[in-house]
Amino acid sequence: MTDTTTRKFDLPKLTGELAEVFGDRLSKAQAIRDQHGRDESAHPKAAPDLVVFAQTTEEVSKAVNICAAHQAPIIAFGAGTSLEGQVHAYQGGVCIDLSRMSNVIKVRPEDMDVTVEAGVTRLQLETYLRDTGLFFPVDPGADATLGGMAATGASGTTTLRYGAMRENVIAAKVVMADGSIVEMGGRARKSSAGYDLLHLMIGSEGTLGIITELTLRLYGRPETVASGVCAFDSISNMVDAVTLAIQSEIPLGRLELLDEIAIFAVNQHSGLENEVAPTLFLEFQGTDTSVAEDIRRFEEIASEFDGKGFQASTSPEERNRLWRARHDALNAGKAFNPGKMGLITDVCVPVSRLAECIAETRKDFEETGLIAAFVGHVGDGNFHTTIWVEPDDEAAITLAHEVIARMAQRAIKMEGTCTGEHGIGIGKIKYLEAEHPTALPVMRAIKATFDPNNILNPGKIFPE
Amino acid sequence: MTDTTTRKFDLPKLTGELAEVFGDRLSKAQAIRDQHGRDESAHPKAAPDLVVFAQTTEEVSKAVNICAAHQAPIIAFGAGTSLEGQVHAYQGGVCIDLSRMSNVIKVRPEDMDVTVEAGVTRLQLETYLRDTGLFFPVDPGADATLGGMAATGASGTTTLRYGAMRENVIAAKVVMADGSIVEMGGRARKSSAGYDLLHLMIGSEGTLGIITELTLRLYGRPETVASGVCAFDSISNMVDAVTLAIQSEIPLGRLELLDEIAIFAVNQHSGLENEVAPTLFLEFQGTDTSVAEDIRRFEEIASEFDGKGFQASTSPEERNRLWRARHDALNAGKAFNPGKMGLITDVCVPVSRLAECIAETRKDFEETGLIAAFVGHVGDGNFHTTIWVEPDDEAAITLAHEVIARMAQRAIKMEGTCTGEHGIGIGKIKYLEAEHPTALPVMRAIKATFDPNNILNPGKIFPE
Repeated sequence: MTDTTTRKFDLPKLTGELAEVFGDRLSKAQAIRDQHGRDESAHPKAAPDLVVFAQTTEEVSKAVNICAAHQAPIIAFGAGTSLEGQVHAYQGGVCIDLSRMSNVIKVRPEDMDVTVEAGVTRLQLETYLRDTGLFFPVDPGADATLGGMAATGASGTTTLRYGAMRENVIAAKVVMADGSIVEMGGRARKSSAGYDLLHLMIGSEGTLGIITELTLRLYGRPETVASGVCAFDSISNMVDAVTLAIQSEIPLGRLELLDEIAIFAVNQHSGLENEVAPTLFLEFQGTDTSVAEDIRRFEEIASEFDGKGFQASTSPEERNRLWRARHDALNAGKAFNPGKMGLITDVCVPVSRLAECIAETRKDFEETGLIAAFVGHVGDGNFHTTIWVEPDDEAAITLAHEVIARMAQRAIKMEGTCTGEHGIGIGKIKYLEAEHPTALPVMRAIKATFDPNNILNPGKIFPE
Repeated sequence: MTDTTTRKFDLPKLTGELAEVFGDRLSKAQAIRDQHGRDESAHPKAAPDLVVFAQTTEEVSKAVNICAAHQAPIIAFGAGTSLEGQVHAYQGGVCIDLSRMSNVIKVRPEDMDVTVEAGVTRLQLETYLRDTGLFFPVDPGADATLGGMAATGASGTTTLRYGAMRENVIAAKVVMADGSIVEMGGRARKSSAGYDLLHLMIGSEGTLGIITELTLRLYGRPETVASGVCAFDSISNMVDAVTLAIQSEIPLGRLELLDEIAIFAVNQHSGLENEVAPTLFLEFQGTDTSVAEDIRRFEEIASEFDGKGFQASTSPEERNRLWRARHDALNAGKAFNPGKMGLITDVCVPVSRLAECIAETRKDFEETGLIAAFVGHVGDGNFHTTIWVEPDDEAAITLAHEVIARMAQRAIKMEGTCTGEHGIGIGKIKYLEAEHPTALPVMRAIKATFDPNNILNPGKIFPE
């Protein structure tokens, strides 16, 4: 599946030319190359031939120019937290590490935006903004770089309320395949001037250009945040309650789902006593008054759908206690599967199909005997599974990939997508055509226009 | 400026081929052609050679195929409510009128989305949704078709709260320049599967493809809506108050500005007694409780910035009374300038520059002696002017275009855009390069890839 054809290019000459620009910020060391040849997925690792650590947009441009002259593959790298092999260098080439481009360039509280270099991470920005009363809401879990989050179209638990990267990047500086530097988007809150190149770049996974700088929307921190938890008889009832709450315009923040198996596991692992049932973890945001009212309104809706044991609180200790099961879910999964490898995938369907999609997926796991954990973002129809297998159990790995394939196909059949937030990378290539049969040729045409020699992250998104 | 080169194509043969598909839904009548050769702007009219009234996506595809074989220009037409000459047929060719594609295909309340044909208008959809408790929020004023609104990236008074078309179209069916039918986007609330073609299409003004079907996000109707009005000493104070209100996460709906000149005019015209001062018209949305609290919070903020005479109400009669000046502003402008032609333009700047941008623009009007009305969307930094000139006063028209040029240049210099919501069309072509100097070649490359023979709305967006 993975194209491992090493490209033909003159590595010593390429190295020499890059060394002139990057000096000791060019590395051929195996350990560095290995670090840059893998992300957090279980996809086969593949180290690049060289790693350069860029400090400016101009350096990225120079690196791209040099690589372009040699027709060597170029892979942009942030924190390496992607989940579909986006940074794996299956065709060798040069990894451009952007993590040292970590300056927050300008915060503009009056316009509620911030311009950062691509290597700034989510948590660095959070710390930087601490005293401004503003925050950047997109939270994919990992402490990814913001450039990487834009490049992969990341989202996470707050999408329902604040949108994904797509809705929150307003401008970007991008180095194109010919080394040119292009500014896209702008700081006006809306514009209808020309084509929307910015959104073409977001989620293009380094195959159309390298984002080196970006301007992000910020939001006022809510005065009051309450966390809540509520068990349901079935995921279907939970989804119906959530749907009615959203239709009723209750401004919900995070809306997370653990199923009864995950609750059982985390109860065992963390010594908790949550009722073993599909459980919804919520966040309410607003003023004291509005949050109190929203909690009351949600409680009424939940009880219509047989919600049980609803609790909510604004106190930090209680909030942590209520959400503890959600926070510990991943670690519980790991603890129950020591030494195992986690195969992670995600799909997203229209919310009306979520319960059915999860039920069918779970049935598939039961029938195959695979052990898997679920985490769902109920508000937007997105859910993740981690399938735990022994790293050397080829049969189980094959089985897991079959189940992952059926998940993707099932989601597409339900008018959903083979990936809500992890991207295509190397892992979802074969489903892209099923999802976008008529659009795929257009995507290919764009790729060919932007990167005629296919040097930008080759082998990703499209089959070679 | 306007390229009026008529293309060379065999019109009789083209007509014959189209007639085979469209029968009496093909028109050569001068009156029909004239109706389709102008929008609501003052740009010179230019009728297409032929008009066809399409009823299905397949018919649009056939029409495009036939035109492509003849290399005849193709212009998609909805309601003709654009404001920058988007539908004017300066190179002749075929206008494809989509207004008969007016079926609401499917409303899905549980997923809060709706699929419509491109010719459904905003108000048709509003009527259709009346009993569902849901609504589609984008409101550019005119009763435009939803396909046209998507194609021009429309927005309007509700952008602050709900976003523009860009944020509210989730999928589309598009006929490309080769007649192929491409489905873009999808019904899942988020996806990171492949390139975002959908957003490339939104705002492309018929130059990359023809949108024939689209799926839109819907929202729950707020339980309570209150309208408010508040005068300020200066626009600068008003903007500061609005900025603080947004930072404080007060969920404001519409946020409209009339300056003292507009207030004076509308007082005269409608016999109102509004204080002659920059005036903010607001909408609060939520529950009874939250709206009451938000009104109180806003009043506090307004008083910090010398807001005067703040009033708000949830009663329909009072709401109409409070907003009457805003509703009557356009008619007041027309009434004060009988027989005159209105040259309409819009720009958008970061909110922190809005007061300054309006002040400089007004100064420019004063110095040139032109009569102009302002309407502003304070929340997003977008404002419109209508310059009233005698239709045969060449000197005034030239002067007006100079002022419009300075507005565009000023907005760009302030890190804004030459058009917040009207698009480029024919009117803003010369500013696109100033705004997007590095991105323009990329936009051109996309145009060349999608439409190599430049048959889709030629002469728009790009200079020939």
